[in-house]
Amino acid sequence: MENTTMSQRGRTAKQAGIALSATDTQTRNNALAKIAEALDARRTEIVAANSRDYARSVDEKLAAPLLKRLTFDDHKIDDVIDGIKSLIALKDPLGETRLATELDEGLDLYKVTCPIGVIGIIFESRPDAFVQISTLCLKSGNAVLLKGGREALETNRILCEIISQATEAAGIPAGWIQNLESRDDVSAMLALDEYIDLIIPRGSNSFVKYIIDNSNIPVMGHSDGICHVYVDQAADIDMAVKIAVDAKTQYVAACNTAETLLVHRAVADAFLPALRAALAQKNVQLKGDASVCGIIDIQPATAEDWQTEYLDYILSIKMVDSLDEAIDHINTYGSGHTDVIVTADEAAAKRFTTLVDSAGVFWNCSSRFSDGFRFGFGAEVGISTSKLHARGPVGLDGLLSYKYKLIGHGNIVADYAEGKKSFTHQPLDRDCPL
Amino acid sequence: MENTTMSQRGRTAKQAGIALSATDTQTRNNALAKIAEALDARRTEIVAANSRDYARSVDEKLAAPLLKRLTFDDHKIDDVIDGIKSLIALKDPLGETRLATELDEGLDLYKVTCPIGVIGIIFESRPDAFVQISTLCLKSGNAVLLKGGREALETNRILCEIISQATEAAGIPAGWIQNLESRDDVSAMLALDEYIDLIIPRGSNSFVKYIIDNSNIPVMGHSDGICHVYVDQAADIDMAVKIAVDAKTQYVAACNTAETLLVHRAVADAFLPALRAALAQKNVQLKGDASVCGIIDIQPATAEDWQTEYLDYILSIKMVDSLDEAIDHINTYGSGHTDVIVTADEAAAKRFTTLVDSAGVFWNCSSRFSDGFRFGFGAEVGISTSKLHARGPVGLDGLLSYKYKLIGHGNIVADYAEGKKSFTHQPLDRDCPL
Repeated sequence: MENTTMSQRGRTAKQAGIALSATDTQTRNNALAKIAEALDARRTEIVAANSRDYARSVDEKLAAPLLKRLTFDDHKIDDVIDGIKSLIALKDPLGETRLATELDEGLDLYKVTCPIGVIGIIFESRPDAFVQISTLCLKSGNAVLLKGGREALETNRILCEIISQATEAAGIPAGWIQNLESRDDVSAMLALDEYIDLIIPRGSNSFVKYIIDNSNIPVMGHSDGICHVYVDQAADIDMAVKIAVDAKTQYVAACNTAETLLVHRAVADAFLPALRAALAQKNVQLKGDASVCGIIDIQPATAEDWQTEYLDYILSIKMVDSLDEAIDHINTYGSGHTDVIVTADEAAAKRFTTLVDSAGVFWNCSSRFSDGFRFGFGAEVGISTSKLHARGPVGLDGLLSYKYKLIGHGNIVADYAEGKKSFTHQPLDRDCPL
Repeated sequence: MENTTMSQRGRTAKQAGIALSATDTQTRNNALAKIAEALDARRTEIVAANSRDYARSVDEKLAAPLLKRLTFDDHKIDDVIDGIKSLIALKDPLGETRLATELDEGLDLYKVTCPIGVIGIIFESRPDAFVQISTLCLKSGNAVLLKGGREALETNRILCEIISQATEAAGIPAGWIQNLESRDDVSAMLALDEYIDLIIPRGSNSFVKYIIDNSNIPVMGHSDGICHVYVDQAADIDMAVKIAVDAKTQYVAACNTAETLLVHRAVADAFLPALRAALAQKNVQLKGDASVCGIIDIQPATAEDWQTEYLDYILSIKMVDSLDEAIDHINTYGSGHTDVIVTADEAAAKRFTTLVDSAGVFWNCSSRFSDGFRFGFGAEVGISTSKLHARGPVGLDGLLSYKYKLIGHGNIVADYAEGKKSFTHQPLDRDCPL
């Protein structure tokens, strides 16, 4: 029965998604404005629902950092409303001509952006993520099935109700947004490859792997970040310390936080004591390989440390003899998220950013910049460690597919196969008229 | 043991791929030129190997169309050499700056194209596909594991040897191209998610589904084409007949061939007899729904016909009462490959091309144009019916990923979090210096 229900919901979402793909810019932007208005008008209800979620979670002994993420107060409502206003101001991502080619006289090819279709997203307990994800999907013309953390059950329920009502009143097809509340719903959703085009799981590597193993639907994984800072032999020591401190301590629970620092042997004597002093002020526990421990007296690191995402005030440190050894270590143990080189040597920066196989390859700045807002994408649905489709912070652009529109005047392939006509393949400087 | 071997080959490919990603345009183009020279110089060996494959396949009673596809003679060698020359002339797809944004003064973000990494491709018996796929991968900096049809075993073996030797002599890392010869190798390859970034299976829907079910590696499916021609009430009847004949008969075994024709009731009386007369000359067997059979005396179609890819001289025909019924039928029974509307009504064409959820949505031209060469992509590795990453004919662009290069001067996130600095997010009009 449960499966039948989810199957019906999936079909409804698919149909709504197709109708949504044909809405114009004005309709979608107007619907976004209506969401912002409704969130503002119904603050009391939202905050009340969130208080019930909070109280229940306190009873259930939810950890303090998670309680903080669960909180959805007036200040956070202001933030998501501001976010919606920024999103309205962004250019319509749909119907954009990405390529235009005259194949022959009177036969014009256009590659035009369109929505992916139906997106299923499973995310953690932040209610602001519910609003950000659903509004990004609306702007990009996608239907969306959301499953948030159980802790935020009541908050997400009222948010979904508000968003559904506001958008339907603005002419968006009903069923484009659906809130899932149970694990059974998630299991059923993973089987709906007929209706759902993409699953975005946000969570640990093991969670993302579980989803991939249990679904035939394409998955865009937002998973672990084992990020590195490599301090090159040509690094400015002060800058390296400053970047390492920020990358490790600015927010330890984030996926773009550094977990391992690599230091070139030539600067280790100068760098390591300075790093230790700076990180001691932030109470960071250090673990080093034998060479590192020969310079600063810290705990020894084991092989397991190189593949651990601590999400905590812990940093593992390894000494390397060359830039290439650092690159190799990162490509072996990293998670392809974000890795940093600190160096004054442009050739070293070029080699590092070319050979390190990660979504973000940063030169002389902190790994913590790896984020949709900081990148100027308006918001993000996640940070992809996949290499296909979208990589790194995923904003509107990662929620698009495209189609080829070919416009002719009765053209047939036989004429080209028989040599009566031939292709011109000239670039066209115009947008698709359809 | 077999698994260990494939695992080693996968690791070698990954390492070669990383080195290949850092080669410059000149090196890759020079290597492509060396392949062309070597293919020309070693024609006798290639043709001899292909003759052995052909003779064995005749003994094994391979069907005539497949024997034709297996043939790799001097003429086909000329074609692939020409193809390589065109590929050399194409712009380097790597290192292209797709987005440049100043996040703040002295903190610049660049989105830069890079290879996907290692691609595993399983394809049919055409040896020319071996050369096309491997040279597309080389130009786009990807390592590749190829498994061609068993019929072409000896031809593919000599082609791989020639390509490996020519490219290694030109400074391309050994192991970037590997030829797989057994089904066990394929099974082992599907488990190598540590080393392989993308699997491209070319074949039937059931084959592609088998691959998706048996691998955690992302799959870009090249599968069935259940393509439609919809003859609208505002269609020019002569044009509709001409397009239908080409879409059905120009090459019946291709995935972009039409399998079902939809005709609007308002023009059915005029169109259907003309269509029957034209297709009778090509010996096409027609099947129609009750309304169609009321106008022309043909075999009745069953529900199964709407979801069948005949790949043969058979066409199913259904009458519809509206444009929206046609769109609905295509979105229900089609395979998202290529669908055509014939109409003089631009609004109908716009609605059709917006709402039909297919890679190719064509107005007044044949579905047979859906092809990488005809689209001007140089060549294709397949036609994707996936909506993620690449859709439709996949050329060089579909073999790319990208990374974000962020260039700073010691920038840290704490300064922005604490309000000391703020983001500017200005577009930059320059390419990434790294």
